[in-house]
Amino acid sequence: MINAGIVGGTGYTGVELLRILALHSDVEITAVTSRSDVGMRVDALYPSLRGYLKNLTFCLPSIESLENCDVVFFATPNGTAMLMAKELLERGIKIIDLSADFRLKNVAEWEQWYGMTHTCPDLIAQAVYGLPEIHRDALRNADLIACAGCYPTAVQLGFLPLLEKGCIDLNVIADVKSGVSGAGRKAEIATLMSETGESFKAYAVSGHRHLPEITQGLTAMAKQSVNLTFVPHLTPMIRGIHATLYATLTNEISVEELQNLYETHYANEEFVDVLLFGSHPDTRNVRGSNRCQIALHLPQGGKTLVILSVIDNLVKGAAGQAVQSMNLRFGLPENQGLATVALYP
Amino acid sequence: MINAGIVGGTGYTGVELLRILALHSDVEITAVTSRSDVGMRVDALYPSLRGYLKNLTFCLPSIESLENCDVVFFATPNGTAMLMAKELLERGIKIIDLSADFRLKNVAEWEQWYGMTHTCPDLIAQAVYGLPEIHRDALRNADLIACAGCYPTAVQLGFLPLLEKGCIDLNVIADVKSGVSGAGRKAEIATLMSETGESFKAYAVSGHRHLPEITQGLTAMAKQSVNLTFVPHLTPMIRGIHATLYATLTNEISVEELQNLYETHYANEEFVDVLLFGSHPDTRNVRGSNRCQIALHLPQGGKTLVILSVIDNLVKGAAGQAVQSMNLRFGLPENQGLATVALYP
Amino acid sequence: MINAGIVGGTGYTGVELLRILALHSDVEITAVTSRSDVGMRVDALYPSLRGYLKNLTFCLPSIESLENCDVVFFATPNGTAMLMAKELLERGIKIIDLSADFRLKNVAEWEQWYGMTHTCPDLIAQAVYGLPEIHRDALRNADLIACAGCYPTAVQLGFLPLLEKGCIDLNVIADVKSGVSGAGRKAEIATLMSETGESFKAYAVSGHRHLPEITQGLTAMAKQSVNLTFVPHLTPMIRGIHATLYATLTNEISVEELQNLYETHYANEEFVDVLLFGSHPDTRNVRGSNRCQIALHLPQGGKTLVILSVIDNLVKGAAGQAVQSMNLRFGLPENQGLATVALYP
Amino acid sequence: MINAGIVGGTGYTGVELLRILALHSDVEITAVTSRSDVGMRVDALYPSLRGYLKNLTFCLPSIESLENCDVVFFATPNGTAMLMAKELLERGIKIIDLSADFRLKNVAEWEQWYGMTHTCPDLIAQAVYGLPEIHRDALRNADLIACAGCYPTAVQLGFLPLLEKGCIDLNVIADVKSGVSGAGRKAEIATLMSETGESFKAYAVSGHRHLPEITQGLTAMAKQSVNLTFVPHLTPMIRGIHATLYATLTNEISVEELQNLYETHYANEEFVDVLLFGSHPDTRNVRGSNRCQIALHLPQGGKTLVILSVIDNLVKGAAGQAVQSMNLRFGLPENQGLATVALYP
Repeated sequence: MINAGIVGGTGYTGVELLRILALHSDVEITAVTSRSDVGMRVDALYPSLRGYLKNLTFCLPSIESLENCDVVFFATPNGTAMLMAKELLERGIKIIDLSADFRLKNVAEWEQWYGMTHTCPDLIAQAVYGLPEIHRDALRNADLIACAGCYPTAVQLGFLPLLEKGCIDLNVIADVKSGVSGAGRKAEIATLMSETGESFKAYAVSGHRHLPEITQGLTAMAKQSVNLTFVPHLTPMIRGIHATLYATLTNEISVEELQNLYETHYANEEFVDVLLFGSHPDTRNVRGSNRCQIALHLPQGGKTLVILSVIDNLVKGAAGQAVQSMNLRFGLPENQGLATVALYP
Repeated sequence: MINAGIVGGTGYTGVELLRILALHSDVEITAVTSRSDVGMRVDALYPSLRGYLKNLTFCLPSIESLENCDVVFFATPNGTAMLMAKELLERGIKIIDLSADFRLKNVAEWEQWYGMTHTCPDLIAQAVYGLPEIHRDALRNADLIACAGCYPTAVQLGFLPLLEKGCIDLNVIADVKSGVSGAGRKAEIATLMSETGESFKAYAVSGHRHLPEITQGLTAMAKQSVNLTFVPHLTPMIRGIHATLYATLTNEISVEELQNLYETHYANEEFVDVLLFGSHPDTRNVRGSNRCQIALHLPQGGKTLVILSVIDNLVKGAAGQAVQSMNLRFGLPENQGLATVALYP
Repeated sequence: MINAGIVGGTGYTGVELLRILALHSDVEITAVTSRSDVGMRVDALYPSLRGYLKNLTFCLPSIESLENCDVVFFATPNGTAMLMAKELLERGIKIIDLSADFRLKNVAEWEQWYGMTHTCPDLIAQAVYGLPEIHRDALRNADLIACAGCYPTAVQLGFLPLLEKGCIDLNVIADVKSGVSGAGRKAEIATLMSETGESFKAYAVSGHRHLPEITQGLTAMAKQSVNLTFVPHLTPMIRGIHATLYATLTNEISVEELQNLYETHYANEEFVDVLLFGSHPDTRNVRGSNRCQIALHLPQGGKTLVILSVIDNLVKGAAGQAVQSMNLRFGLPENQGLATVALYP
Repeated sequence: MINAGIVGGTGYTGVELLRILALHSDVEITAVTSRSDVGMRVDALYPSLRGYLKNLTFCLPSIESLENCDVVFFATPNGTAMLMAKELLERGIKIIDLSADFRLKNVAEWEQWYGMTHTCPDLIAQAVYGLPEIHRDALRNADLIACAGCYPTAVQLGFLPLLEKGCIDLNVIADVKSGVSGAGRKAEIATLMSETGESFKAYAVSGHRHLPEITQGLTAMAKQSVNLTFVPHLTPMIRGIHATLYATLTNEISVEELQNLYETHYANEEFVDVLLFGSHPDTRNVRGSNRCQIALHLPQGGKTLVILSVIDNLVKGAAGQAVQSMNLRFGLPENQGLATVALYP
């Protein structure tokens, strides 16, 4: 049995970890921290979990609270995991960070986009990027896992086979739409239902923090610099990301070859599902599941390839991917606790 | 392994059965019928199920298609199960009907409310009403199970302890709100998103088909005639029922005794969860789960007791309850395949 | 031309006042206050108003900012209007308060429910309750208008003819559902889209601040004490209130007489629309309009009368009603600026 | 007073015409047709219109019903207006067609995309495309107006200044998101709330009927062939279109020049509002209004220009634009009946 701790248990990625881990047959949740709710029963805040967590109460986010854990998940705002990582690692505790603290390899770039000084830049090199479909082997031995962000997961899985194959122009576009849970569980006017319901808008078009993360990944796939235009949008729903990706084909390549490229690449991936050519994946079909569904289109037989890629931002884009990484690290079946069917309708 | 068939696999209760049964360790889904989609892969219609159903295709709703089943679920419009029930029962196949064909014991009443002639009234007497919290023992031996409706489940579980105790006036009110999936997967203008989104209304106030079903149940609990005013409403969400029940206390009974009455009554019920007195259950906390959450209020210390009762109409109000009944009938743990946590947020 | 000021222009009732007054042919908006946004253009915060407000900027909420107004609307949290009312009245400025400061005639009761000391209890007696269908004549001469709350408007208009007629038991129930804009434009977790979308719940069942306000109104209609059970709910939409009211008939009274009672009572009311007996009013049909639509039902020909009453909480429940009151006070046609059709779909 | 008829009064563009025309000071609605609802009061189907339409009832769609009209609006499915156009024009009645029958100048192309034979191709040449910001002068004298589609309006207004200026590559992308009311008021499973709520998907990526319409318009602007990749999406809201447009700059052109280009182009357009550079228009800010709001972005100072353009699909994308065209044709102020503020929140 793996003893797991969750730092930041009151946000949406935290409660999603609880939902998944509560039913994970190899995990015992032993600590859930929340500075503001210390002593409160976790299921008093989240009545959906009544009966699944014994008498677990929120504790302070301290080394003492976590020292008996085998693994600690950080479901915290950016800038928190880096404060505790070293001490936990020294105690032999594995870290799975769902925030962005260890995602970018370039510290200067990280500090510029996140607007703070990185407090343990020396750990960045050893952090393994938690996108199992790309870094599976490294994750099996990683002590510090920097889970991929939600947008980065949908976009990178969508472009991966193409960029490895090297058949597209390296100026690409990602027009991505997210449900509002991606903004987190924070008291803010901008994500009130009265503000976001029944409305649609783009945001952060001039520059979103996931841009350098995605660019880093795409560049590694292509083995040369990729120039990404990334436009995120807020869509009036709670869960789900839909990435609409645009790439210009540089080689003669048939529709059948393209489809075959994707199907072959993801043939052994349980959590990436390539639909028939010309399909339209729908975020509802991955809601609550750890799956990414992908479909290809080549409108009017031109050279602009359109890739559609959908995930649940809280599962494959956060907590599910974190558990998938944990399973790899601890030698468990990769799908342990993750073999669920999306909630439709 | 139980071989299960589903008649009417293209509606919301049908696909919800598929979602639950696909992961049920003791069930093999062997037949899913759909007159209009014969030959089509089930997961082509429902991409959320890709990978969970092997190569299952829709078949015709016939005895031949179903004769190897141990149990057949009817997730059909009213009036279908009664046409096939006798032949299936004769072959020793258990029937779990999610429609209303066998819910009312009074045939004349059924024919009046459902506007058709009942084709096998002789089976009605042997049908066991599928609300395990009330008819558990009978369900263990039932060959024909008439699953409780969605509204009836939320309302009956809410009133049960009170009516058995006999401490309220028998004129009661159920003001109930449902998500739109309760209306089914039918091509209709009334349940388009443009019609039901961002709007709220009552419907069928003069008389809804669930009225006689609920009244039959409440009267059995009270052992005398109960007069129910039942007002259903359509609320702009997909899943969930919230029943707000009003009863007038006739005895002197303290808040503590009331709360204790409910907690004691449901102490051993895994799927009925009595919250602290004065709580406000939220439909999201049971979304996708087989649970009913209930809370009591006595506003201004008066005599009008308010009971709040929430379920997911497709799970505890339909497919989950059907599987719970199946588990009982086949001697499995009652929660097999149903131990899931609600999807929040 | 009436010079109008709005104190608290950044909340939903404030921006709704702006929407209505910007097109009101007899009103010039001369001051909009916001402590936190002083100097900012109003249409920078609300781009929907670009082109309709000239160069209006937010100013401080001070007597100086408002002294040239003929009328000042308070679209503020409770407890603000009472701080400025006396000074404004002394300058001959009319006050239309959309908050609750002057709604309750009993100061002690107000202080208990609102948890603060009333700073100018001497003004309460002169305040006229802003529900024109009940207090039209008094409003024509009112210098201080205390606009009716949103729930109180829907509930009181629904019960009025019955209570004046005196044909129901005085124990009544109001089961009321509101869109989330009723909670205001405040940074709060509870009204995030991720919390309120796709979910339904009751709240404040043990006691909501609108309870004493409604009871005060109903008691005045009945000329004797009315005992109300009031259960508010939050429904996943932005605008709209749907009140489902339950009353027990004490007299023999036919369906035709009941319907006639309502039609006659509201025959000359432009903003109260009595639908055919047995109709189901839908909140979408009053969205954005100043109208209340009402329908009656007598299920199963019993004695429990069900009254359905819908309004847009921000219009007839707030800003529209305020403008209707202003029109009366300034001798304008009562519907000036309010003759709009609801936005459907 | 202009006598106006509406053919197809039961769809969303029909009822939106009713909402606008009911309050238009120069229009009398004299006929509203509906084959299935002949004799029914229009406000019985649409209670939001009670009190605004006198006793208007639905009539048959025939020349007799319409012969006293000055103008007839077709709010019908494609293929209907072309059947009646000639006879109406012969009687001197102006036609404003909100369907697609007369939008494409190339008949063969129209027949290919719409899958039917055009019954009066000889009228196509005289039809004026109803996008007043481009064809204002021609509309003043048009007897047959082919209103621009919803997607085409948002996309063309977004690209217009750029293409006329000639500073972008002619391979462009339009990633467009629409609310579900764009699918019309039809009994269909695909647009049920249970299907479209809480979910997001692309559709018709391989080819949507608005593609040739937009391409025809863009090509006219550029005076050379434009190659458009057009990807429409369905977003879980009722009203609103958000177009995210991508173009590659070919000239050196500064951000200031770009912004100036748009502001100058639309300086005198009441219904096109260019926001500050770097803004994020939100569909809610045009909901219920006839306005298009546009903003420009040049992410990371590169060469990929991002244009954001939002409209209400039922107003500027349909009924509002139709009334704007009617105003031009009948010599009225262009904004008559259209000077309204969007409904926020």
